[in-house]
Amino acid sequence: MVSIKDVAKLSGVSVTTVSRVMNNRGYIGKETRLKVEEAMKQLDYQPNQIARALLKNQSYVIGVIVPDLAHPLFSELINWIESYASERNYKLLICNSLQEKDKESNYISMLRQNRVDGIIMCSHTLEVDAYRSVGMPIVSFDRILSSSIPYVASDNYKGGEIATQHLIDQGCKNILHISGPLKYELLANRRNDAFQLTCMKQGIEWNYVEGAHVQSTFQDNWDFIEAEIAPLLEEYDGVFCSNDIMAYTLYVYAARKKIKVPDQLKIIGYDYHSFTRMLQYPILTTIKQPLDAIGKILCSSLIEQIENQNSDTQRNTILDVQLIKGETT
Amino acid sequence: MVSIKDVAKLSGVSVTTVSRVMNNRGYIGKETRLKVEEAMKQLDYQPNQIARALLKNQSYVIGVIVPDLAHPLFSELINWIESYASERNYKLLICNSLQEKDKESNYISMLRQNRVDGIIMCSHTLEVDAYRSVGMPIVSFDRILSSSIPYVASDNYKGGEIATQHLIDQGCKNILHISGPLKYELLANRRNDAFQLTCMKQGIEWNYVEGAHVQSTFQDNWDFIEAEIAPLLEEYDGVFCSNDIMAYTLYVYAARKKIKVPDQLKIIGYDYHSFTRMLQYPILTTIKQPLDAIGKILCSSLIEQIENQNSDTQRNTILDVQLIKGETT
Repeated sequence: MVSIKDVAKLSGVSVTTVSRVMNNRGYIGKETRLKVEEAMKQLDYQPNQIARALLKNQSYVIGVIVPDLAHPLFSELINWIESYASERNYKLLICNSLQEKDKESNYISMLRQNRVDGIIMCSHTLEVDAYRSVGMPIVSFDRILSSSIPYVASDNYKGGEIATQHLIDQGCKNILHISGPLKYELLANRRNDAFQLTCMKQGIEWNYVEGAHVQSTFQDNWDFIEAEIAPLLEEYDGVFCSNDIMAYTLYVYAARKKIKVPDQLKIIGYDYHSFTRMLQYPILTTIKQPLDAIGKILCSSLIEQIENQNSDTQRNTILDVQLIKGETT
Repeated sequence: MVSIKDVAKLSGVSVTTVSRVMNNRGYIGKETRLKVEEAMKQLDYQPNQIARALLKNQSYVIGVIVPDLAHPLFSELINWIESYASERNYKLLICNSLQEKDKESNYISMLRQNRVDGIIMCSHTLEVDAYRSVGMPIVSFDRILSSSIPYVASDNYKGGEIATQHLIDQGCKNILHISGPLKYELLANRRNDAFQLTCMKQGIEWNYVEGAHVQSTFQDNWDFIEAEIAPLLEEYDGVFCSNDIMAYTLYVYAARKKIKVPDQLKIIGYDYHSFTRMLQYPILTTIKQPLDAIGKILCSSLIEQIENQNSDTQRNTILDVQLIKGETT
């Protein structure tokens, strides 16, 4: 590998001068600068960012922990995070927790040992205390970890409310909510709160069932629906699913059982990620989370913490959601 | 951040002794080892892997460059790469080239400056020379870069052959192939070679049109089909699409134009990624690339290069493909 010494030699100046050119420090004559830059180019010199990171105590690397890289919600979110991080000259170390506590915990240690500048947490299998003690900038997607760790989420309460209200407006009298697991105290649980309150206020019969947090295969969702939802389905004329993959699987289940959607059963999903947008049979009615904006703000909020470590402007961000009317309601 | 000095102080030994314990070097008494380990635990000491990387000239970081992180083919591939890398204690730096030459080129520089141990190249917008001069272990997905850079691919020729033969076996007499762009000299182009030869040998009428390399939105594919394929479609009774998203979009186009699939038009795709597996209307006939095995071997082949730098066993890998019979043929 070409070193700074080779650059100094070729350009006929000292290592200190090369270092000054690279770091824009001190006075450097125009001619010297040109000579050094020409030598760097000729030798294809790549400054060692690891040495720089060690010296400056900043690596310009962000760790991102997600529960499932192949899930369309998280692959799309990472896509946006990468795009904004790259604009700010940050790089991403990607970790896939597979929703296992041990893996998530090992990844946090690994990221600390690799001196990433901060972590974007999108996987939430640990107790809240485990995140508080990480001792570096963190931002969380969809979960309150502590009053000192900012979070970014879409307006889950409003999402739950407009989904439920939409089913009621379309004439549903008995509504089921397939929520995620409520035990993790995720912000997504507010969809369930809004669901309950909206139904109660309007005298609508309701019930809910807890599904898995992230389940990205058709078969897993299908098995869940056969075991947990099928025995109840007759009692309901509307189902609010907390994610689009569940909503799609329920639609397929209904179609195979000759239950007419939306006439006999109305289905609304949640997310509007790449899978939902691609899907044409059916075009799902759903609630859109603005993944672009979520990715952007996860990034900028973390970089804000990294670069202004004593900043008082610790802010949580709630982004607006939107009803996307499809054919299933 | 807790340092090695703090650990030395708390355990009452020298920094050198702590370092020996951490690196398993030299003789250390059992009691001393326990004292040091206890202190590390108590202080939650995280060894600085960046300093280690600088010292050992190995970062245990692999760079992965893909054309589109949100595309189901690449998000699933990264998922598998991450899983195998993590088993071998390697971490992934993820780069999204968006198929732009400048971005791809900048990412390669960035990865070199960050002293990653090697690069998995899944994006191919640059000329072959640009990859040859990178000067670190590389492995390529689906493209021959040079005789010294191993590649991993599925058997594209066989995939093209069995796709074409399947259409012929199902009775097609006039077949169109929507291929990717042929100018990049990707291994995927062999699908088109196999398509041509298989049709010629059996006296089947054929033609092909070049589409985009990676296009992940329904609308982009739809626009392409309306502009390039619709005017020709009447002449054909079978279409071999080089990816499943194109095949799905073509199916939707046919359905909207009241062309019956598979009676009037048979469609076969390529890939069998998470989107295809999820899809139920229609269940696509397609060629399965074994993404799990591809990810695993991309990883192991790169790590082999990194860890045995003088190894003679530079091997390319071709993995078998498989016909998945669905409802569209």
